[in-house]
Amino acid sequence: MIERFSTEASRLEAFSDGVIAVIITIMVLDMRPPAGTNLHDLAAVARPFGAYLLSFVFVGIYWNNHHHMLRATSGIDGLVMWANLNLLFWLSLVPFATLWIGAHPASSGPAATYAALLLVLAISYELLALALIRVNGRDSDFAQAATGSVKGRISLVVYLIALIGAFFMPVASEALFVVVAIIWLVPDRRFERVIVTKTK
Amino acid sequence: MIERFSTEASRLEAFSDGVIAVIITIMVLDMRPPAGTNLHDLAAVARPFGAYLLSFVFVGIYWNNHHHMLRATSGIDGLVMWANLNLLFWLSLVPFATLWIGAHPASSGPAATYAALLLVLAISYELLALALIRVNGRDSDFAQAATGSVKGRISLVVYLIALIGAFFMPVASEALFVVVAIIWLVPDRRFERVIVTKTK
Amino acid sequence: MIERFSTEASRLEAFSDGVIAVIITIMVLDMRPPAGTNLHDLAAVARPFGAYLLSFVFVGIYWNNHHHMLRATSGIDGLVMWANLNLLFWLSLVPFATLWIGAHPASSGPAATYAALLLVLAISYELLALALIRVNGRDSDFAQAATGSVKGRISLVVYLIALIGAFFMPVASEALFVVVAIIWLVPDRRFERVIVTKTK
Amino acid sequence: MIERFSTEASRLEAFSDGVIAVIITIMVLDMRPPAGTNLHDLAAVARPFGAYLLSFVFVGIYWNNHHHMLRATSGIDGLVMWANLNLLFWLSLVPFATLWIGAHPASSGPAATYAALLLVLAISYELLALALIRVNGRDSDFAQAATGSVKGRISLVVYLIALIGAFFMPVASEALFVVVAIIWLVPDRRFERVIVTKTK
Repeated sequence: MIERFSTEASRLEAFSDGVIAVIITIMVLDMRPPAGTNLHDLAAVARPFGAYLLSFVFVGIYWNNHHHMLRATSGIDGLVMWANLNLLFWLSLVPFATLWIGAHPASSGPAATYAALLLVLAISYELLALALIRVNGRDSDFAQAATGSVKGRISLVVYLIALIGAFFMPVASEALFVVVAIIWLVPDRRFERVIVTKTK
Repeated sequence: MIERFSTEASRLEAFSDGVIAVIITIMVLDMRPPAGTNLHDLAAVARPFGAYLLSFVFVGIYWNNHHHMLRATSGIDGLVMWANLNLLFWLSLVPFATLWIGAHPASSGPAATYAALLLVLAISYELLALALIRVNGRDSDFAQAATGSVKGRISLVVYLIALIGAFFMPVASEALFVVVAIIWLVPDRRFERVIVTKTK
Repeated sequence: MIERFSTEASRLEAFSDGVIAVIITIMVLDMRPPAGTNLHDLAAVARPFGAYLLSFVFVGIYWNNHHHMLRATSGIDGLVMWANLNLLFWLSLVPFATLWIGAHPASSGPAATYAALLLVLAISYELLALALIRVNGRDSDFAQAATGSVKGRISLVVYLIALIGAFFMPVASEALFVVVAIIWLVPDRRFERVIVTKTK
Repeated sequence: MIERFSTEASRLEAFSDGVIAVIITIMVLDMRPPAGTNLHDLAAVARPFGAYLLSFVFVGIYWNNHHHMLRATSGIDGLVMWANLNLLFWLSLVPFATLWIGAHPASSGPAATYAALLLVLAISYELLALALIRVNGRDSDFAQAATGSVKGRISLVVYLIALIGAFFMPVASEALFVVVAIIWLVPDRRFERVIVTKTK
């Protein structure tokens, strides 16, 4: 039975990887080369480039943590599949939000939208974790690993501050996005521990 | 021999997953950020967003059910490969229909096209099921699971009503699309039962 | 050693599937919905749609035959990898040729380009077959299956006729494309026989 | 433990393959068919086509070598994942640089940007190799295979020359790109030897 579940989880992972690979790559389609031919003409794409880099890191972080979480689970069910599709849906909106913030940096609308999207993404990720805990059981190693992330809680608070702050000082919100990205660059050690224990 | 068939089925699944992952993601490329920079400027993309959300759910449903059906089959053949490509072809037209209905909600042309596409998709899915039943045998567990879906029949009727209704009251057709999406959000339990029986 | 080769072949297959999945799907991005909102406004996309359908079938045929051929091989080498990348390169130009012929049906330039691309694709496929025969050995079952395709030779001749004919009567060339597509819709039985023999 | 690492490496490979498959394919979206319908109208896309072909070869080379390197490693860790994402990020900028150089050949800005991107890609690849050597151990077969590439060092020097030369004679830099592409067309034999040793 566990065998079957693992196969299911690995296919969910493969499909998610496909969607994330497309998301992370099509964003670059919105970065158009400058009309001029001098190196300093690249200054015109500096802001879209910054937005693209930031979003690439965020999507990369989600891919990384999603990967560790799905590897640690002993199975999936229908609810997990929908929680996962929900996460993918919001991830697929990252190119849209990136394009807007890249075209208009330091503007409240795009900054607030970007903050709101990061907030919804974080909540969707937690919902997926909850759905997976339900499958693994509340007393499982997985449940222990998946609950109580200090980083996750800090991020949620920062996203909220960035969302509200966007209406007063959008540049500060944008700085907060960069800070959170740096905090998350280290992958989630919690699940790595579970995997190591399982393979021992 | 069954071994070989399973590998074949899993590769068909992998290719289909790749195509569906691209389809579900490129739709978002058609949602362009507003020219303004205020949060209320997002109102301009509310309708394309609604159309995108609806299509994301429909493609997600097809991915989910396609996944359960291919997991339950004991093999595939050339006819299955073409029935599957046929389904993928119509799925690939979803971004086109979504773009049109998103740009012109409550218009008969786009609503009728969307309804017709859903109808053709449902028929293509049934044709794939028939091709798979031929491989598994009429007396197989698979055949039992794949025939007689009440949900499937109701959907066909609703799509037909939505198609005809689009010429009189397109908004009603659009409401029907949402209703069918909600009905299908629960995955098809029939195939789950077959898989469980097989792995026992 | 054979084990290692099989894994290599399956990874080549997975990468090729990814590229083909993207090719077959992004073509639809070039089909823009009509400006009007009546069903008969769809007439404006009838020609791009026809071109898309034709190209979808051709790419689907290549995917199908490529799949059967790679499944039948006992291994790959560096030359196979480049022969495969060469085939993928020309396949990636299908969206370009499709867009041009869809926008200007019955014109010599687009029809000749489409014919030339089909010709180069057929040659590239044969080159890949030759590279694979080199790996499997000239006396292998694979070599027997991979040489002497009547269908393949007929196609080459038809593509040549279509290429020359495009400068005199482009519509006739376009009719020939449809004829070849229909001929190829049945997958290549030659490799299926080899696979069955191997798994026995 | 090694088992687990191999699975991890194969998933990293699958995700990278997905991203590279999208990168290599979406570049073609930027090649628009000519407005005219004569064969000689294709002359207008000769330069974008040349740029596309060159970039296809470079991305193909990275895919090929990346593949051989990941196959040879006995495992991965968090640092490898980020080094890999870093490489994918710069690869994802290839379509951007290709579009610019294709639209303005023989211009210093695009040629310098293309040279700089190739330089950063080469460095990112070496960083990934270093991260993988750290996992495999300094005395491993992998480390021996991964260090001391003459080809790699020559490329770095050529990219630097092309970068500086772009400001004086951009056409010469473009010729250098073609030369390096030809040098790299033969896959890296170093890792093939390690794999063969391992499977013996």
